[in-house]
Amino acid sequence: MTERQVTAELAAWIVNLGDADIPAEVRTEGVRTFVNWLGCAVGGADHETVDAALRAVMPFSGPRDSTVIGRQERLDPLHAALVNGISSHVLDYDDTHLKTIVHPAGPVASALLALAEHRAMSGTDFLTALIVGVEVECRLANCVYPDHYDRGWHITGTAGVFGAAAACGKVLGLDQQKMQWALGLAATQSAGLREMFGTMTKSFHPGSAAQNGLKAALLAEAGYDSSEKAIEALRGWANVTSTKQDYDEVLGELGSRWESALNSYKPFACGIVIHPTIDGCQQIREEIGPERVAEIERVDLKSHPLVLELTGKRTPRTGLEGKFSVFHSAASALLRGDGAPTAFTDEVVNLPEIVDLRDRIHAETDPDMYEASVRILVTFKDGTTLEKFVERAIGSLERPLSNEQLETKFVNQAKLVVGEEIARSLLGEAWKIESADPAAIARASVPGRQEAAE
Amino acid sequence: MTERQVTAELAAWIVNLGDADIPAEVRTEGVRTFVNWLGCAVGGADHETVDAALRAVMPFSGPRDSTVIGRQERLDPLHAALVNGISSHVLDYDDTHLKTIVHPAGPVASALLALAEHRAMSGTDFLTALIVGVEVECRLANCVYPDHYDRGWHITGTAGVFGAAAACGKVLGLDQQKMQWALGLAATQSAGLREMFGTMTKSFHPGSAAQNGLKAALLAEAGYDSSEKAIEALRGWANVTSTKQDYDEVLGELGSRWESALNSYKPFACGIVIHPTIDGCQQIREEIGPERVAEIERVDLKSHPLVLELTGKRTPRTGLEGKFSVFHSAASALLRGDGAPTAFTDEVVNLPEIVDLRDRIHAETDPDMYEASVRILVTFKDGTTLEKFVERAIGSLERPLSNEQLETKFVNQAKLVVGEEIARSLLGEAWKIESADPAAIARASVPGRQEAAE
Repeated sequence: MTERQVTAELAAWIVNLGDADIPAEVRTEGVRTFVNWLGCAVGGADHETVDAALRAVMPFSGPRDSTVIGRQERLDPLHAALVNGISSHVLDYDDTHLKTIVHPAGPVASALLALAEHRAMSGTDFLTALIVGVEVECRLANCVYPDHYDRGWHITGTAGVFGAAAACGKVLGLDQQKMQWALGLAATQSAGLREMFGTMTKSFHPGSAAQNGLKAALLAEAGYDSSEKAIEALRGWANVTSTKQDYDEVLGELGSRWESALNSYKPFACGIVIHPTIDGCQQIREEIGPERVAEIERVDLKSHPLVLELTGKRTPRTGLEGKFSVFHSAASALLRGDGAPTAFTDEVVNLPEIVDLRDRIHAETDPDMYEASVRILVTFKDGTTLEKFVERAIGSLERPLSNEQLETKFVNQAKLVVGEEIARSLLGEAWKIESADPAAIARASVPGRQEAAE
Repeated sequence: MTERQVTAELAAWIVNLGDADIPAEVRTEGVRTFVNWLGCAVGGADHETVDAALRAVMPFSGPRDSTVIGRQERLDPLHAALVNGISSHVLDYDDTHLKTIVHPAGPVASALLALAEHRAMSGTDFLTALIVGVEVECRLANCVYPDHYDRGWHITGTAGVFGAAAACGKVLGLDQQKMQWALGLAATQSAGLREMFGTMTKSFHPGSAAQNGLKAALLAEAGYDSSEKAIEALRGWANVTSTKQDYDEVLGELGSRWESALNSYKPFACGIVIHPTIDGCQQIREEIGPERVAEIERVDLKSHPLVLELTGKRTPRTGLEGKFSVFHSAASALLRGDGAPTAFTDEVVNLPEIVDLRDRIHAETDPDMYEASVRILVTFKDGTTLEKFVERAIGSLERPLSNEQLETKFVNQAKLVVGEEIARSLLGEAWKIESADPAAIARASVPGRQEAAE
């Protein structure tokens, strides 16, 4: 138990923050966060997971103010927040706050952009709210990580709902008390289990966090009250969902330490702990060439135990399961040089040559290794070996994606859904979010730019 | 960890159960559960909490197929499930599964009746699904109670979402695999913190459980997949949210032990652990008469520690807070002989004579006492004393409300919202639910029977 007024102090900071209080480099990272999120939302928009979600919720949509990113359907803002949150995460290709494995943008940007088509907001207000939401989400995640995550909570869902509530509450202009209520309504909706990894329900988590965070802000705005100390109370969020509570992570250095500026962007479309392995396997393929890859007898991976706990699926049958199989990912990277979304389709996961190599890949764990490192030992049929150690994968904070790499990632995934012309034009507009109309950017993601189908 | 296929076995039971597999006395208790729920939903319908929820969600409603019980507004089924769940719980006057303190009907009946106006179902199917949903909810609650509740989860929300998903999935005719997905989607939305007690957000929990359980069933129907072992998996619901998991409580004696038949109905509109105190204070008032009540110097209560943990609010300022103050409740019962919703208004909680007596009521705890008992010692100004021990309150399983008492409770609360004529006619129809059209009963709750506003 703490005597600190965590919820109240955090709410006061959210409410009182001005655009100019956010340093330029933090705003720049916020734009990168938005660009990466939008590319992923378009790239995931035609996934069967999104089709299924739309089949379920379309009949219940309210006034269709908001764009389903990358598609012709429209939905009310609450349902659009849900579906766009799903789209942006379904390829496991989005962003990562590496300290907590939170994928920050999904819950926040999905809620905010859906709301922007219902209540006009400037690009500046949008960006400020996005940064505030990501900041709140990552700080709350820091507060309870790793115990909370180890217990089995999918932290993108459980912390994400706070981020969405904070961002939406900020643009709705909630006063401090109502912001506390919004955080309380977020706390009491915080949910999402790690057991869902490898199923459609994993990407439901950021979607649901976006929808429920927006709902929390709207309820608070309407005078629906809640606890005003939901984060720190004895039966509040941090105590109920975690054995660790570090409130300095929430309130310390507010306005000077920016967790949102520590965001990173995935180069590969799968669980982040696999990335060093794919990076290393790609490097090996480049070094030895495709013909020599065919001569591989076996591969031995050594990594931190968390890697196998999260991504140890030995015989994935679907693309979604493949994203949580370090074995499939390594085989695919060696045989195709590829960690893009196209490496994680149902078809590729079941290709005989992939399956054959996959089954000759072995993994062991070493708790003394860093979670973001891997040691790869390749044994060839002639008995020779090759070893590769990857200390930090591309896409990590030490080796961040450049703006150019972000653009390539954006276009390569978005063009498969909306065509290259729309993808490039949307990308250009996304970079200018701070001076643009966010609602117009949402609408610019629609393929064919036709009138929305019902 | 268990080797048992808990989710799969439970889903199979839900899917395969026929109307005739439910014994007559269980069906009869199901009707009483429905009647009590409907009376509470009407009785709470004009509460400011419901007004605030409607202000927030009305602009986002889809096609308005479903009745907001006791009001003229209409909403899409998902939002109607939310609001009716709030209405039915906001007076803290609904039903209780005493082994777990779950309030069973709110999440289940709110979802099911809202769905019944969207997809026609017979009264028989409705009642079967209601009983199945309550059974699933109470069995899952038994599985993790008391550790789960002690940790701080509001179990009506966390277990309720499973009940709503099971009930809605049953009437939607899901096959076993889709029912497992629905339970998985429910598990990953399971939420609600005890910190919210005494605020509007407490009644948000059964509402949100109803909405999210219905959504889980609709998503599963549309082919949105999920874990098929969400209840028992290592990172599944029971392990993540509780230190206790007793799967015999879920799967044992399915079809012969009926938790749904153990439902009880509150005679007083406040936290269930206060009921023995109100019962005892009412008896004292009847025995000594109102004039002698004015001679009371002080009152000493002795009860199990849980009573004060849950309802120890010393100086409640609002009606909602008063429902969690054993002090206000005792004062009100002594001075007014009353535990009805009208004893828990903002006005009554602040009446000078109530506050004056309330502040002369003292409480101590005894961990050896049963949670549902209380010892009351009244000391009069002349120094004489009177003691009253209540072993079990009225409304408990040992002293259940008769059908006649349920009718009185129904009419007395509903008439304040929709008038006595509609209240009595609705009551008559509710008793006949098994042979009625559920949708017609929902519509019969609307005051004035005018065209819906909006």
